[in-house]
Amino acid sequence: MKHNFGAGPGILPHEVLKQSAEAVLDLNGIGLSLLEISHRSPEFESVLNEAVSLVKELLHVPAGYSVLFLQGGASLQFSMVPYNLLPQDKTAAYLETGVWANKAIKEAKLFGTPVVVATDKENNFRTIPKKYEVPSDAVYFHITSNNTIYGTQIHEFPKSEIPLVCDMSSDIFSRDISVADFGLIYAGAQKNMGPAGTTLVIVKDDLLGKSGRAIPSMLNYQLEIDNGSMYNTPPVFAIYVSMLTLRWIKAKGGVAAIEKANEEKARILYEEIDRNPLFKGVCSAEDRSTMNVCFIMEKPELEKPFLKFAEERDIIGIKGHRSAGGFRASIYNAMPITSIHALVDVMQEFAEKNK
Amino acid sequence: MKHNFGAGPGILPHEVLKQSAEAVLDLNGIGLSLLEISHRSPEFESVLNEAVSLVKELLHVPAGYSVLFLQGGASLQFSMVPYNLLPQDKTAAYLETGVWANKAIKEAKLFGTPVVVATDKENNFRTIPKKYEVPSDAVYFHITSNNTIYGTQIHEFPKSEIPLVCDMSSDIFSRDISVADFGLIYAGAQKNMGPAGTTLVIVKDDLLGKSGRAIPSMLNYQLEIDNGSMYNTPPVFAIYVSMLTLRWIKAKGGVAAIEKANEEKARILYEEIDRNPLFKGVCSAEDRSTMNVCFIMEKPELEKPFLKFAEERDIIGIKGHRSAGGFRASIYNAMPITSIHALVDVMQEFAEKNK
Repeated sequence: MKHNFGAGPGILPHEVLKQSAEAVLDLNGIGLSLLEISHRSPEFESVLNEAVSLVKELLHVPAGYSVLFLQGGASLQFSMVPYNLLPQDKTAAYLETGVWANKAIKEAKLFGTPVVVATDKENNFRTIPKKYEVPSDAVYFHITSNNTIYGTQIHEFPKSEIPLVCDMSSDIFSRDISVADFGLIYAGAQKNMGPAGTTLVIVKDDLLGKSGRAIPSMLNYQLEIDNGSMYNTPPVFAIYVSMLTLRWIKAKGGVAAIEKANEEKARILYEEIDRNPLFKGVCSAEDRSTMNVCFIMEKPELEKPFLKFAEERDIIGIKGHRSAGGFRASIYNAMPITSIHALVDVMQEFAEKNK
Repeated sequence: MKHNFGAGPGILPHEVLKQSAEAVLDLNGIGLSLLEISHRSPEFESVLNEAVSLVKELLHVPAGYSVLFLQGGASLQFSMVPYNLLPQDKTAAYLETGVWANKAIKEAKLFGTPVVVATDKENNFRTIPKKYEVPSDAVYFHITSNNTIYGTQIHEFPKSEIPLVCDMSSDIFSRDISVADFGLIYAGAQKNMGPAGTTLVIVKDDLLGKSGRAIPSMLNYQLEIDNGSMYNTPPVFAIYVSMLTLRWIKAKGGVAAIEKANEEKARILYEEIDRNPLFKGVCSAEDRSTMNVCFIMEKPELEKPFLKFAEERDIIGIKGHRSAGGFRASIYNAMPITSIHALVDVMQEFAEKNK
């Protein structure tokens, strides 16, 4: 069995994969594949409704918010957010915590002049900036909750009068959040929610309709709300697998239980990194991510041999992002603790051999 | 066995479904699901490369064109086309042949003043307009090759000096086309190419970079070309299933062989509609689609009983679109001729019982 530490599209629960494969052949015994049914069929409508309900239940989404399943990934959200929320003559604030935040800022520049309130770029994003001021005239404040490439995570969300917009692509459903503290949350599915191909959006309804822009239909949140995420044919399969994954989270005891397990998994791995003389963490201890654990080796010349050593022992996907180097073990919700132990064992075995 | 005449997401070849289900469990025996591998892995890169190659091979795409697999369906193309091709001070021409053409026109209006060269709206789109003039200053001329709702199809593409942009969502890969006659072709996958969740675009490179607009990255064809359809995480599963479907088309003898089979299937069904005293076609005989066969009953009061009669005999998905009424039998590439015979048998049996 392989231990899949890949950063995404990432590991999914085995039972979700099994049921998804069955549905590709025959959905619930109806004699048709999930792939060849109408998105307007009662079968798919019930899938989409259940997916939306599970999001609301698992995240305790309060009244006044809409839940959407869209396409285009977080990258399309980078444009949709200013299209829908940012009037021509207004500004928006952004916290720059890495490449993805930077891409969001780049898109916002097509719609005006976003203010970058803080960045840790000079330090290769090893820390989440905490001291900054959000201009009071900003219509929203955009943050990235978890930075896959650098292994940093915002553990305490900023308190702000200004609606908080958050890219949660890599840690949604990994920990309890208070949706009421956000104006808009979005997340590509392919880390903790499902396969690549759909994007979750949770938006506070009363933020919409104020940008004064002529928004292309497919980029218009309100139109998607009015059409229940079916303005056009939705990505049926990706939504189905997401629904199964959300069911799995619920069966595991919900997000609070998942969070507890994630904290334990991260603790074990960081402990080994800090303990093992061959390895060291890369980012500020207080900003360490529970999803993407980044580390390097004290002796860089041992990195290639360790990668090979680990791969030979079925530890895969731990090579760090090219812009960060070293290693990155992504330990999303579906990663069992046994795989964490397997990685720790391999680190210890390697250290033993390289004393 | 059910005979799936649904309009889309539509029927897919059984062997494609079988292989897709296997890949969800384990892709090519690598010990990982297709859903949990990186889109940057050699495994997925080879899937995407093969899909692009097969499109080029099956449609004989000439040099100077790029092939993209995107997200958002044809509906996002309705905006991407003017964003990328239409300068602020220029106009574009549209042929209005139904609801989908109309939606494309609606989006183009956000970018300027498109000219509708002809429409058959008054006649509920029963005919493809053939006499019209395309303004010589239009930067492109947009057509919809097949109109699923009304069962009409353009059998002879207009000759035009102006680059032809064509929505081929419902008949791509169903018949031979000369890509060189088009400036841009796009198609949602979910009729003849794969499952919902990816969109094929074939674009003539030298049309790009001239709109002078600040294009959001995810809507920028050139950026997707530069990134080989991987500006962000692509819809891995939908592209994989499309690749398998394209392989299946190739194994069947390519598009020319598929076209021959499609013509035969359509001929048999239209012949029965014209012959059987209970039924009649709805659109102009010369514009009849080989993909979506629309028909009504001479006595409207028999429509409900016939629908029930057919469903009891495993003929499903033949209810007409709500805006057209009657019946619509969608007979995409993957529909076997045995299912056509099954439908014809049911029509004859019903006629026998209702003499």
